[in-house]
Amino acid sequence: MYFPTAASVGAADALLTLFIVLLAAKVGDEIFKRIGQPALVGEILAGVVVGPSLLGLVEPDATLELFGELGVVFLLFWVGLETRLSQLREVGRTALGVGILGVIVPFSAGFALGLALDEGFATSAFLGAALVATSVGITSAVLIDLGLLETRASRTILAAAIVDDILALLLLSVAVGFAAEGSVDVAAILVPLGLAAAFVVFVALGGVQLVQRQPDLLGRPRFSESPLLPAVIVLLGLAAFAAQIGLAAIIGAFLAGMVIAESNDRDDVEEEVAPLYAFFPPFFFAFIGTEVDLEAFTSASTLLLLVGVTVLAMATKFGAGRVAARGLGKREAAFVGVGMVPRGEVGIIVAGIGAMTGVVDEKLFAVIVGMSILTTLAVPPLLKRLGPGSR
Amino acid sequence: MYFPTAASVGAADALLTLFIVLLAAKVGDEIFKRIGQPALVGEILAGVVVGPSLLGLVEPDATLELFGELGVVFLLFWVGLETRLSQLREVGRTALGVGILGVIVPFSAGFALGLALDEGFATSAFLGAALVATSVGITSAVLIDLGLLETRASRTILAAAIVDDILALLLLSVAVGFAAEGSVDVAAILVPLGLAAAFVVFVALGGVQLVQRQPDLLGRPRFSESPLLPAVIVLLGLAAFAAQIGLAAIIGAFLAGMVIAESNDRDDVEEEVAPLYAFFPPFFFAFIGTEVDLEAFTSASTLLLLVGVTVLAMATKFGAGRVAARGLGKREAAFVGVGMVPRGEVGIIVAGIGAMTGVVDEKLFAVIVGMSILTTLAVPPLLKRLGPGSR
Repeated sequence: MYFPTAASVGAADALLTLFIVLLAAKVGDEIFKRIGQPALVGEILAGVVVGPSLLGLVEPDATLELFGELGVVFLLFWVGLETRLSQLREVGRTALGVGILGVIVPFSAGFALGLALDEGFATSAFLGAALVATSVGITSAVLIDLGLLETRASRTILAAAIVDDILALLLLSVAVGFAAEGSVDVAAILVPLGLAAAFVVFVALGGVQLVQRQPDLLGRPRFSESPLLPAVIVLLGLAAFAAQIGLAAIIGAFLAGMVIAESNDRDDVEEEVAPLYAFFPPFFFAFIGTEVDLEAFTSASTLLLLVGVTVLAMATKFGAGRVAARGLGKREAAFVGVGMVPRGEVGIIVAGIGAMTGVVDEKLFAVIVGMSILTTLAVPPLLKRLGPGSR
Repeated sequence: MYFPTAASVGAADALLTLFIVLLAAKVGDEIFKRIGQPALVGEILAGVVVGPSLLGLVEPDATLELFGELGVVFLLFWVGLETRLSQLREVGRTALGVGILGVIVPFSAGFALGLALDEGFATSAFLGAALVATSVGITSAVLIDLGLLETRASRTILAAAIVDDILALLLLSVAVGFAAEGSVDVAAILVPLGLAAAFVVFVALGGVQLVQRQPDLLGRPRFSESPLLPAVIVLLGLAAFAAQIGLAAIIGAFLAGMVIAESNDRDDVEEEVAPLYAFFPPFFFAFIGTEVDLEAFTSASTLLLLVGVTVLAMATKFGAGRVAARGLGKREAAFVGVGMVPRGEVGIIVAGIGAMTGVVDEKLFAVIVGMSILTTLAVPPLLKRLGPGSR
């Protein structure tokens, strides 16, 4: 007999999913901290364990996807709160180079690999696009963990990731255009691209100026309570808008943090957002883990392709960043190069869109997801080794 | 042309929904505070405005339902943190009476009304069950707002609401049994009922004893960081378990708060949970508002039924509470009676289950939802007037 619940059934199951994932992530986090490894790697692996690949307790469903998205949104909001526009401007030229070169080289390599493997034009374009997208969420979490968010190299990575995301939007639009219609409508691509660039510039410059002139915008006496909800509303609004115009929601979240950092309520917001920043991000890392399909890699040819694509993804992104940031000195340039390597959720999303469009088959999907995870797992120890204060 | 987003499309739309609802709730909250009215009424009405009834910007979809559920879960966790088991025991006998009488009288009245209106047995049972369920979330929010959570009358309401929810589970099971099979399998109902009662007793007594013996259970040195995530994991676990066995998730949330209140980390948890408690509950109130279907009440007969059912719901619940709590004195007993009146989300959920089962038609559904909202909107001003310190 079916027993209805006082809570509705859907929400009851969603609560269970959230419980399992948060518990698993916390266990993974604690274990990895105790063995001196980066916590986020423990959280991703916890997602692999409870996900479909192993225990099958949870699936990467809409609930987990939304909580993962909110996780990375709060993560980048936090990073934005720690960042000043003037600091980004200082690294602007280098970051532009890192962003542009870091898109051209991996895309070309992925596209060429696709063609070399006798894949079609559209499929090759998707492979290239999947190699492009840096997951700044992963790098940010590692930088916070290492206490290195305030360095010049870290700021270069953040600014380059914004350039990277705008160009990735362009490439993804081209790839989808080819996959859907076999051709590209240039006007239909340039309009949203212009919109995306205008959004970033307008919010970054206009928002910062507005708040500098009205530094009490979010707090008393305008609102009756703490500035937390006004700040979170600005955050959700900019994140949702960025996502609606095709950018990553985290770009909006980062800008929201950067704008609010200029207000007099910055310290209050930071203190009150901290628990939200503790609560949501574990879902982001665990969600990435649940996307993995370990079974796909029992086939030797898939495994070989995974190794090849991963090496290509790491070498091209690292090389591009290392060369474009050479002005910062050898060690910092290498740090920037490594910081751009993780593909995290962004590679997975590109693969998902390719699968929906029908040009990325199951095998290639598993490979791109696997590459995204491997590039993500490799980076934390490398950054730790390259960071200042280490040998 | 369709533009894929770096964030997936589903999560992007969910972000937009969360933004609109939180913004609307905050606006409603601020307006109602400024005119000296209860903030939660402003938040519910904000949900009516942005919901399908008026602007149609959002729908009560799975995202909003989950965030609403988390809202009331964090609300009752907060109430639990403020409550000691010993304080509940003091009011135990009175609360038991309030709970039992407050179930029997409204159920009988609703059932009789259904039969008098020539509805079938199953439909009448649903109408009765919908009149039973008190939304302690609403009352709790008002009590917190008025600073009256620590009074004897408030504790009586909280304890009675637990009894109420267990008995409501029984009645709902009976009603669904009739609706689905035309008969009731007593064993199939008693098993989950016993499970529910055992869960409450076991967590309340066993959990409190465990934490009293190990008051550092959640904090350092066991865990590397603050006790927030361990506490939230306990919260989600007990809420999910309660929901899985057919109780309201908020019963588990309340018990989780009460257990953690015994630990040495209580103050840290309270301080860190505060932002989550600020973030989620507005979704709960606004979600209730989005469920309203104003259009249904343009028909005079539906409107008349709404008035009748609402008066019945208020009079029976108030009368039962007033009588059962008479030992507390006239004014406190009236306070308890009013505190049991709001049906909030629970009435809406019962109506939803009835609609899914096919015995509650569109008209009756709109009436039950309308009754749930009206009983909810009526209570905050009444409690304010009856509370100590007022005339």
